[in-house]
Parts: sequence; structure tokens; C-alpha cells
Amino acid sequence: MELVLGVDLGGTKFAVGAMTADGTREFGFASAPTRAEESADAVVGRMGALANQVIETTLKQTGAKRSDFIGVGIGAPGPLRRNDGIVVVAPNLGWHNYPLREKLAAEVGLPTTLDNDANCATLGEAWIGAARGARHVVGITIGTGIGGGLVFDGKLHHGASDVAGEIGHTTIETEGRRCKCGNYGCLEAYASGPAIAERAREALERGSESVLPKLAGSAAAITAQHVYNAAREGDALAREVVRDTARYLGAGIANILNLLNPDVVVLAGGVTAAGEELLTPLRLEVRRRAFKPAVDAARIVPGELGSRAGVVGAVAIAVQAHAGRSTR
Amino acid sequence: MELVLGVDLGGTKFAVGAMTADGTREFGFASAPTRAEESADAVVGRMGALANQVIETTLKQTGAKRSDFIGVGIGAPGPLRRNDGIVVVAPNLGWHNYPLREKLAAEVGLPTTLDNDANCATLGEAWIGAARGARHVVGITIGTGIGGGLVFDGKLHHGASDVAGEIGHTTIETEGRRCKCGNYGCLEAYASGPAIAERAREALERGSESVLPKLAGSAAAITAQHVYNAAREGDALAREVVRDTARYLGAGIANILNLLNPDVVVLAGGVTAAGEELLTPLRLEVRRRAFKPAVDAARIVPGELGSRAGVVGAVAIAVQAHAGRSTR
Repeated sequence: MELVLGVDLGGTKFAVGAMTADGTREFGFASAPTRAEESADAVVGRMGALANQVIETTLKQTGAKRSDFIGVGIGAPGPLRRNDGIVVVAPNLGWHNYPLREKLAAEVGLPTTLDNDANCATLGEAWIGAARGARHVVGITIGTGIGGGLVFDGKLHHGASDVAGEIGHTTIETEGRRCKCGNYGCLEAYASGPAIAERAREALERGSESVLPKLAGSAAAITAQHVYNAAREGDALAREVVRDTARYLGAGIANILNLLNPDVVVLAGGVTAAGEELLTPLRLEVRRRAFKPAVDAARIVPGELGSRAGVVGAVAIAVQAHAGRSTR
Repeated sequence: MELVLGVDLGGTKFAVGAMTADGTREFGFASAPTRAEESADAVVGRMGALANQVIETTLKQTGAKRSDFIGVGIGAPGPLRRNDGIVVVAPNLGWHNYPLREKLAAEVGLPTTLDNDANCATLGEAWIGAARGARHVVGITIGTGIGGGLVFDGKLHHGASDVAGEIGHTTIETEGRRCKCGNYGCLEAYASGPAIAERAREALERGSESVLPKLAGSAAAITAQHVYNAAREGDALAREVVRDTARYLGAGIANILNLLNPDVVVLAGGVTAAGEELLTPLRLEVRRRAFKPAVDAARIVPGELGSRAGVVGAVAIAVQAHAGRSTR
């Protein structure tokens, strides 16, 4: 039996799980708060403890030996230097040039591979999730930011310096909204969770009526989730904000279709809570903009793995790296 | 000796040439007018005659036998169905669902492979041109339209339905200029040759002074080449049009960098005539917009093969298909 451990590190929590290298069975999925305010070493110490606990649970459940574990995959917020196993900058963690791969490998004592969290989530969905069996998969994770991953022929496309997949930072308006990255008109500046909330607040300031301030407690407290909930209840302003979000995401995804012509686009993150209220106009906008053979070839679907996608994808990168096996 | 024939079919002319399968030697490069007003079969008949002539010339020059030719590659305007060897629609040729691969194979009697012309040009530059030795290459051909090709790890990325690489039809302004493809705000609608000429005419209509009408004979006759020439001579309006072109192309290329993180972006087509007048502000715009590790990793350079790129790339696709050999 070949077993692989996956670790998904986020700003608020980390998650760990084990799987067979063929992707058919999962063991001991567990998570814990990151507590990024502690030192990086302290965080990794607790991640290592949870990882060892998951390994023990898995061995008990399966009767396997520790030597049946062939490796560990870690998904972490980027930018990172994969080959060196280093997290270059992780604003949500406060980490700079932290050698995460070596540190976690020392805790667990197994060959370890590091990759970007959005890459892992995409590979997870491509392996056993919403895009399983597909040849070319683009994953878009829409939450606080907009991340992405590209899987061509079962393998992640990392690019020349591990930057590839930054769909959130493609320009859809050359002189548009200022983005946190310094650029103007990035997709993320229009369609991330905070951008959605901000557009709702701007509409309120222009005098539109809405249940949103009451729902959120105050205008300042409005989040994207409030907008999705209000839209589902028929609130006109919220519905307009969701429709505009669909328009922006549709333009960004149409660009992906004309440029990369994927078989599947998998949407993940908080935005999927908006459901068909978002997906239906989004698909229409994509059809309006992209070439027909590209539109006809591409399914645009929500992810199936939910919060497990990152761990599953971390397992998949370790399967590719340490079992030398395809995950397609 | 392994020899390969390349054919590059365009709206105004077609070109044929032979190369050794290792890319080190070229023989008998020749071209002739397409005369698209004739029937598709007539065009292919003349292409086949030139192809056979180039084969004979090559055999005389090298002392090789006809059996040393292992295959033919054809680059043709898309969209096309590669696996079936069919040109689906070629507006400049007036062709619909034409089985180009089989027709030309019948003329030449060799295994034949068909691919998109912009794909071929990119693969040619990646093989022995401006991007030789690079891992991830994006080619952008800017002329009457804006085409593109993606070469990852030495291989073309075709996508699910042979549409991939349509960089000209990525949106940079969601409610921008109408594009011939039906979409709004496509890069092509701002930075193709005709779009450049149109922006110059619009500036003239707004009352700007310029040598352009005199240079071109009339405002209606202005082409992108007139704009580049006038800019080089210091004409203020022309220089502004070139600077705006650099801004639009810079936004589109920054998107490519953040999304695909290539090692090299190769620019080809008429726009390269603008030289540093265009390239310097274009590179600045890319640096202003894209992530630093992506900008630092990517060279943005004009192609080195000029009008030979298409034939060289057509040879490269045939080398990959019929010699089963990498061209990286």
C-alpha cells in the first residue's frame, strides 16, 4: 500500500489528511487554527504534530506500516520558490523567505514537496474532483483574493518562476480600479470577496435601497456572503452586484477560454455560495465573449471537494513527485 | 539524412522550404502568390507543385534521396481541426471545411501534419529563432489581426479544441471597442494594424496636426506602417498613437506574464517595424502591471526569423509528428 500525506496551510487554519497514492481512499482528515501571530517555527511544530497524528490514525485504520508513506505534499500561500521549498512572502502569515519544506520534513521525516495553495486546489479537483478525467483544467479560487491554477495533461503549469496561474491579476479594464498588487483594473479588484462587498457599499452610498445594512448590522460590516444571501432573497441591489460580478468574472474566464481553451474551469472559494444566481449569468457572459469552439469545449463548474481540495491536491503533488506517478 | 518540408499558407502568399530534421540547415525557401480568388484545389495544386520543386532542389543540393523526406508540415490560418486536417473557416481564403492536409498530402506523397499559422510561427522562433532554448514561449503575431501561439516545454499547447493562443481576443476593456470577433474590448480591436491606423484617423478627426495624411496620400489611406514611419520622424500624433499601442499591448502581455509566466515573449508581424519606439514603452507598461518575478523571468523580444518563421515552424510540427523528436 502506498500512502501519501497532504498538508494545506492557510492564514486562519491548516488542514492535514492522508490518502492512498491512487486517490481512492482518504484517512484522518483534520484541521487546526494556524495562529499566525505565533512564530513560523511554532506553527510548523503544530502542523508537524497534527501530521504525525494523522499518520498514526491512518496506520491504525489500514494496518499499513510507516514505511508505506512515500511522501508529504504541502500547499501554502505564495509567492514561493518551489525548488528550494521556500515561502517567499506570505502576507497573511507574516512570513518572509521561510524554508517551510525543510522545516516540515524535519517534523515528519518523509520526502516533502511544496507548491502554491491555489495550484494544489486545482490539481485536487483535476485528480478526483469536478474536473477528474479532463485534459486541460483551469482552477479559480475566489475568496479574499482570486487565485488560480493551470493543469495541462495532468501536470501543473508553474511557468518560469512559479508565478503562473495568477488569474486574479489579469487586467480587464486598463484604467480600472486600483488593485492591491499595484496594477489597475485587475479581475481581483472587481470580483474578490472584499471587492464585491465594496461595490455593494458604493451602490448604497449612491442611495440605492437594500436589506444589506440591516442584514450585516451596518454598511461597513457587509461581506460578499451577505450580498449572496440578500440576492437569494431577491434584494435588487444585491442581485445587481452579483450580476456585475458575473460580468467581470465572465470577462476574465472568456480570456482564459480564448487563451488556454481548457476542458474544464473549476470555480472554488466563497463565491461558489452564490450558486446559480452567479453561475447562470457568468456562463452567458462567457458565451457572449469567447470563441464558440472554446465555449463549447469548456464546462464551467463549481468544485466538488470544497475545503478538502487543498489537502487532496497537496497529496497529488506528492504522488507526482515521490511516486513518480501521473494523477490524471 | 532526415529532411522535412514546411509549407506556410497565407492570404496573399504561400511559402515553402525544406530543412534537416535537426533544424541546422535550410534548403530552397521559395514563395508564390496565393491567388485566393481561384478555387481551393487550384491553390493547393500550385502549392504542391512548388513543394515538389523545393524537394527536387533540396535533393540536388544535398545528394539525398526522396525517401529521406520524412514528412510535411503545413501552417494555415485557423480555426482548424488539426486531427482531421481540416481548415474550418479561413475568411481571407474563402475556405470552409476544406481538407487541406489530405489534399496537399496527395500532391506531395508524404505524411502531412496541419497546424495553425500563428502556432507554427511561435514554434519556429522557439526552435531556432529568438526563443531557442527557452522552456515556455509565447508568440504574438501582430498584423491585420493579432494571433498567438503557446509553446510549453517545447510543445504547442493547442487546448481542448485547437483554439488556444488567441491572445488578440482577450478582453482588456470590458466595454471597449467592438471587435470583428463579436466581443468588445479585445486586444486586437486596439493594437492590430488596422486598429492602429483607425486610432490615428480618429486623432486627426479630433483636429490634431500630423504629417500622416500627406505621407499616406489621404487620411483614409493611412496604414500602421505610415504611423510607425511618421513616429520615427518625430510626428507628435503618430508618436502618441504608438505610445498608446504600447500601452494596450503592454496590458495584454502583462496578463500573459501573470497567467503563464513565460521565459520569452516573441513579437512578430508588421508591428515589429515600429522598433524601440514601441518596444521600450511596451516593456515599461508590462513592468508597471505584472508581478516582478514574472517580469524578471521574461524576455520580450522581436522574432528573428521574419517571414521564414511560419515555414520553419511548419517543419518543426512535422519533425515532432513524423520524426517523433522534440524540437526544444
